[in-house]
Amino acid sequence: MTLPEYDFSLKNGLRVPPLGRRLRLGQVGGGQGAIVGNWHRNGARLSNHWDLCAGAMSRNADIAARSAWDTVIPLDRSYNDFRAMAEAEASREDGIEAVCICTPNISHFEIAKTFMQAGIDVILDKPITTTIADAQDLVQLAKDRNVVFAVTYPYAFHAMIRQAQSLIAQGALGPIRQVMVEYVQDWGTTSEAEENASVAWRRDPNIVGRTSATGDIGTHAYHLMKTMTGLSAQRLRADFHQCGGTKALEDTAFIKMDLSNGAPAQIWVTQAAPGNACGLRIRVFGEHGGLSWDQEYPEQLIYSPLDAPQQIFSRGQGAGLSPAAERLAHLPRGHGEALTDAWGNLYSEIGMVIAARRAGVTLPKGLVQVPFGEDGLDGVKFMEACADSAQEDAKWVHL
Amino acid sequence: MTLPEYDFSLKNGLRVPPLGRRLRLGQVGGGQGAIVGNWHRNGARLSNHWDLCAGAMSRNADIAARSAWDTVIPLDRSYNDFRAMAEAEASREDGIEAVCICTPNISHFEIAKTFMQAGIDVILDKPITTTIADAQDLVQLAKDRNVVFAVTYPYAFHAMIRQAQSLIAQGALGPIRQVMVEYVQDWGTTSEAEENASVAWRRDPNIVGRTSATGDIGTHAYHLMKTMTGLSAQRLRADFHQCGGTKALEDTAFIKMDLSNGAPAQIWVTQAAPGNACGLRIRVFGEHGGLSWDQEYPEQLIYSPLDAPQQIFSRGQGAGLSPAAERLAHLPRGHGEALTDAWGNLYSEIGMVIAARRAGVTLPKGLVQVPFGEDGLDGVKFMEACADSAQEDAKWVHL
Amino acid sequence: MTLPEYDFSLKNGLRVPPLGRRLRLGQVGGGQGAIVGNWHRNGARLSNHWDLCAGAMSRNADIAARSAWDTVIPLDRSYNDFRAMAEAEASREDGIEAVCICTPNISHFEIAKTFMQAGIDVILDKPITTTIADAQDLVQLAKDRNVVFAVTYPYAFHAMIRQAQSLIAQGALGPIRQVMVEYVQDWGTTSEAEENASVAWRRDPNIVGRTSATGDIGTHAYHLMKTMTGLSAQRLRADFHQCGGTKALEDTAFIKMDLSNGAPAQIWVTQAAPGNACGLRIRVFGEHGGLSWDQEYPEQLIYSPLDAPQQIFSRGQGAGLSPAAERLAHLPRGHGEALTDAWGNLYSEIGMVIAARRAGVTLPKGLVQVPFGEDGLDGVKFMEACADSAQEDAKWVHL
Amino acid sequence: MTLPEYDFSLKNGLRVPPLGRRLRLGQVGGGQGAIVGNWHRNGARLSNHWDLCAGAMSRNADIAARSAWDTVIPLDRSYNDFRAMAEAEASREDGIEAVCICTPNISHFEIAKTFMQAGIDVILDKPITTTIADAQDLVQLAKDRNVVFAVTYPYAFHAMIRQAQSLIAQGALGPIRQVMVEYVQDWGTTSEAEENASVAWRRDPNIVGRTSATGDIGTHAYHLMKTMTGLSAQRLRADFHQCGGTKALEDTAFIKMDLSNGAPAQIWVTQAAPGNACGLRIRVFGEHGGLSWDQEYPEQLIYSPLDAPQQIFSRGQGAGLSPAAERLAHLPRGHGEALTDAWGNLYSEIGMVIAARRAGVTLPKGLVQVPFGEDGLDGVKFMEACADSAQEDAKWVHL
Repeated sequence: MTLPEYDFSLKNGLRVPPLGRRLRLGQVGGGQGAIVGNWHRNGARLSNHWDLCAGAMSRNADIAARSAWDTVIPLDRSYNDFRAMAEAEASREDGIEAVCICTPNISHFEIAKTFMQAGIDVILDKPITTTIADAQDLVQLAKDRNVVFAVTYPYAFHAMIRQAQSLIAQGALGPIRQVMVEYVQDWGTTSEAEENASVAWRRDPNIVGRTSATGDIGTHAYHLMKTMTGLSAQRLRADFHQCGGTKALEDTAFIKMDLSNGAPAQIWVTQAAPGNACGLRIRVFGEHGGLSWDQEYPEQLIYSPLDAPQQIFSRGQGAGLSPAAERLAHLPRGHGEALTDAWGNLYSEIGMVIAARRAGVTLPKGLVQVPFGEDGLDGVKFMEACADSAQEDAKWVHL
Repeated sequence: MTLPEYDFSLKNGLRVPPLGRRLRLGQVGGGQGAIVGNWHRNGARLSNHWDLCAGAMSRNADIAARSAWDTVIPLDRSYNDFRAMAEAEASREDGIEAVCICTPNISHFEIAKTFMQAGIDVILDKPITTTIADAQDLVQLAKDRNVVFAVTYPYAFHAMIRQAQSLIAQGALGPIRQVMVEYVQDWGTTSEAEENASVAWRRDPNIVGRTSATGDIGTHAYHLMKTMTGLSAQRLRADFHQCGGTKALEDTAFIKMDLSNGAPAQIWVTQAAPGNACGLRIRVFGEHGGLSWDQEYPEQLIYSPLDAPQQIFSRGQGAGLSPAAERLAHLPRGHGEALTDAWGNLYSEIGMVIAARRAGVTLPKGLVQVPFGEDGLDGVKFMEACADSAQEDAKWVHL
Repeated sequence: MTLPEYDFSLKNGLRVPPLGRRLRLGQVGGGQGAIVGNWHRNGARLSNHWDLCAGAMSRNADIAARSAWDTVIPLDRSYNDFRAMAEAEASREDGIEAVCICTPNISHFEIAKTFMQAGIDVILDKPITTTIADAQDLVQLAKDRNVVFAVTYPYAFHAMIRQAQSLIAQGALGPIRQVMVEYVQDWGTTSEAEENASVAWRRDPNIVGRTSATGDIGTHAYHLMKTMTGLSAQRLRADFHQCGGTKALEDTAFIKMDLSNGAPAQIWVTQAAPGNACGLRIRVFGEHGGLSWDQEYPEQLIYSPLDAPQQIFSRGQGAGLSPAAERLAHLPRGHGEALTDAWGNLYSEIGMVIAARRAGVTLPKGLVQVPFGEDGLDGVKFMEACADSAQEDAKWVHL
Repeated sequence: MTLPEYDFSLKNGLRVPPLGRRLRLGQVGGGQGAIVGNWHRNGARLSNHWDLCAGAMSRNADIAARSAWDTVIPLDRSYNDFRAMAEAEASREDGIEAVCICTPNISHFEIAKTFMQAGIDVILDKPITTTIADAQDLVQLAKDRNVVFAVTYPYAFHAMIRQAQSLIAQGALGPIRQVMVEYVQDWGTTSEAEENASVAWRRDPNIVGRTSATGDIGTHAYHLMKTMTGLSAQRLRADFHQCGGTKALEDTAFIKMDLSNGAPAQIWVTQAAPGNACGLRIRVFGEHGGLSWDQEYPEQLIYSPLDAPQQIFSRGQGAGLSPAAERLAHLPRGHGEALTDAWGNLYSEIGMVIAARRAGVTLPKGLVQVPFGEDGLDGVKFMEACADSAQEDAKWVHL
């Protein structure tokens, strides 16, 4: 019996790996005690596109080995040095085809560079580097080495964000006139929280560079706004504050922007707002309507046409969703999908991009929307512009 | 039979007029076609402290008379000139004891001055004038003439705002570290809305001065923040925008402040955000907890102690409310009170202040919280500081 | 100057008394310590159709007098006997034109009868009597004496209920296939609450008859369902329970009905559901869509067309409301109206009915929707059918 | 280097497979076009406890093969007959250790029996059979053959359900006095939906037995109530209705119960309530408080202590959760987990049970809460009691 070839133009089948096999994934960072590494692994597993085969999950050999055992990586493919891992895996026949890197920011550059140079596709957490120059170098290197360079902005992979894109693209809002984004948390309200090692590095300038909350969650907010509206910042002004316990860097930023179409926008990020866990919310207002979405209630997209009742879009057949949004929906409406599912979508789409390259297939334009190195570079530029502005009393800084 | 005297220290009895009779109220403005005048009348009626006896509800004699008929004012006490009204009423034995003024901003000063000079207590809508100098003059005149000069900020008269005050005063939040206020509407999204006469004047610099949305709704937002937190702005920077149809003045303002305790705060006001009707929302964050309140759901105050479950306060016995909050609650919990009731509370408390003065009684400190002329002056200063800042690219302006 | 006559067909002007004067109202019950009497007075005041002129607010002369003082009723028109009041008021030139009766249920019949016989219009709280026979007698007597006999079901006077009626009448739901109503409270969870005098009578069979929660709040739920859907119960089965402290009568009832069109429906009432204050919620499901409304959030009506996004209707211009719904809206959208406003609407519409009769005018069909004696009788029949069914293990009882 | 042995008493580590390897899973049913099979696979993958190695995903060999390709099952382990699969897999060294069965109800019995007899652990979807006798036979057979017999009730695997259990067990509610459960959907509103093959079988008495909605979603509701409260039904009465298009079986049931402690409870299930996608909601009321949970917002558990503000529990450190609830939480608070994560938890806990048996370890009592065959049998008894009652006009039926 011969099976039909995979159809890359498929509207559905997001969790079907195109090559009839899963891709081999390695992970750097994300060992026991880490937070973000779990999300990558969850996404990779749920996507059905990946097998986790190798890891350098800690620089401590013991923790690395235990972490490998926990995640069912063979111990002979558990490394405690990323360079050793890149070398060894590049030389194996069954070596990893891509690596996901979820270490603290400062190490992103060297690690990503090493794997790119070894010809291994890179999936890198944000912010991709701590300087613009490094980010530009990585983007260039990925081109030179012809490797995929994907960046993990998972919030853009909720079905309702695709629906928002579709509505905006169809003109449901008319010209966009203002945008308000907030990403508010509370884990940085006290200094004690910072004593947790998995958290403390986020406030250390030697590890994260010139910004803390801005690089950590502001880059998510900015990417989400760009993805949803298609607009970016021309220039911005930023105020940095410490609204929680004493820290070396800001836990709060108020960022005012002029968007590419001239409309004003604002991003407010804080990690010192008690009562807010992961309050990433975006509101887009145009001449004919508004849209509102909240990451903590990701299944609802509220559309407010001017002078007509509000409408609530949710996932699922018959709910008036665009095909691009339906594509990201796996369970029937009401059978909740949330951040885990968004990570699954992200890893599925990265898997499709990589599989398509290996298969020599050109993906239909617009079908997948993986954030690539340039999107990561944009995040670093945003973060650095905020730092520049905050340093001089919120002066205007052009991007 | 002798009835006991009214006890001004009463915790309840907000709708019992202290003098055993209702006070005599006149109204300037608020005739047929107007919006705000209805709210004043609703509040006055509901409070049970007032009888509406006279009015100059329009400069057009016909409209004035019809409006008087609608509101059951005797036609011989319907005036089409506020000066005539002040003179006539001041000379009647049964003349009005207070006047509520709800005309467009530019006329506030002359009308209020005229009634103050006639010795009649004044209840004035906000912003009280279009210039700081005029506002200062009115405050001084009220003192000189020894009249009550109350300003109508109704949102501060929801029970949950008193509860928020109590919680903050008790230290439930710890030191306040940041505040976010927004007052977002959508009636100004198109230019057509502005063709409505009851709306058009709000964009006319000859009537409202240098600001539109900022004076109209920004002053409410600023007063609410002051009332709830006890903090005011030291300095601010403001950006003005037109995010809806073409207008002479701003429909949107982003206002960044340093508060009196050094904490950052922000007020965002817009009348061009489709999907928002009367979105006055305030979030206060301290070292130990946060508070959140939304005018469209005024019965819930969300309190988020750090590291414990969120709590929802609502009106009503047994719900852990402070006496000051209970005092403003009239119906059992869940039997909704909303803006009409807040206006009723405002007019009750003004009635108590005036009755106490007439009775020669000193009200227990803190029992009533009527906004007086100084609060109105603060609003004008805020509005003018915003205009000064916006004029020079959001420079810092001290208040 | 001659003013134009009042136009009874006016779409708006709900708070304009048609006769150019307010009607004279008396109140029986509702003195100090009572709850419901306040709502009647609030509604009457807010409506602008009524002046409260006389009262028999308590059988205790002292309390009656104090209550009169509180509510600014002249002491010579404060009675401590309703018969004396009816006689005296009927013989005064300026005697009351209507009386609102808000005493405990058992006394409704005698009081209403007395005022009807005196030719005074009657506004009676629900349930109108404790037996079907009494209710029928009152309905007949009102006809015989040609007096208005209005019953106070305020929840039907929210703008969104009229909107729901309009949507259903237009076929937005298609044929109605099932209805779920709940009215859930928690004040009866403990026995202590019952020690409060204003509450205790609600559990006393000598005062309320055979049902407690069912007559108290079940009648509201049933009336709301009838109003919104146009359907009534053909037959029902009811289970009564005590889910809170020990009581003489039920605090909880599960009522299953077959509606007049054959569809199943259910009413669940309880006063022993901690966390619920006044949870009157109705959900109506048809072949093409559903509607959902919650008294605690009365400004939103959720309409769910099958296979299209949900829509949220709210009050206000441009929001797609029917004229009948707009008619009950007084403030702009988002400027919250709640139960106080609904009572105001109820008293306005009663005022219009009475004024129209006095003016010899026939009101346009469907313009006002006052619940009359027959609606009150329906409530008593519903309550009695529940009692009959519960007594025999939830057997079917026809209405 | 030697790794420490897995500690089965671990509070966390839910996604760490105890044996240092994943278990081998097979699937019967769930091929292309099916719905529920995806959820099983998602849960298995996300859990990190399972590798899907074999399948009989359709009786049609082509669909079976394509489905295997989609899910990366080797084609030589794709079967189109479950008996062949059981035989072949049982005889392989690397044969599957457990099978998940997600075929239409009527086939559950034979398939489960076949795998049990082959000594393979069984994970069976609900309702486990179409008759009580069959269910009892399976329970007995699992004992006789000493295989694990797990039943997939995923809703009980949300962290907030464990939190609810903890609160109830600690007495936060006091004695439970009434319970209200609803599971409301709308996909059965029209007959057209039923034309979809993946749906049509749910209404076919030859496939599902005597009930449709009751067996399909009522069993979920009943299991959730049992899990959360520890109470079951003593007796019940049920009304069946068709509130959507014409069907052979009920799409709606109203089920009234007397619980094991004497308290009344109700389950309302319908698949014909437009606007409801997966509205599984439970409210539990005791003498001292209430709890409320909604599957569509699974991250919030609302706790209403009597006479104190409501509290909202959510996942995450510092939020006052019990260890049993924390154990099911994988992402920081606010980083949404939903149904996919609950399925992951279910498959993790089943994995732990099976691994512990293979390792000869006795799990700490209460650590895992897998629904076993007896829970599945309870569901069938509930479903059959409903059918018995509905057949005789909602007579009482004892369980």
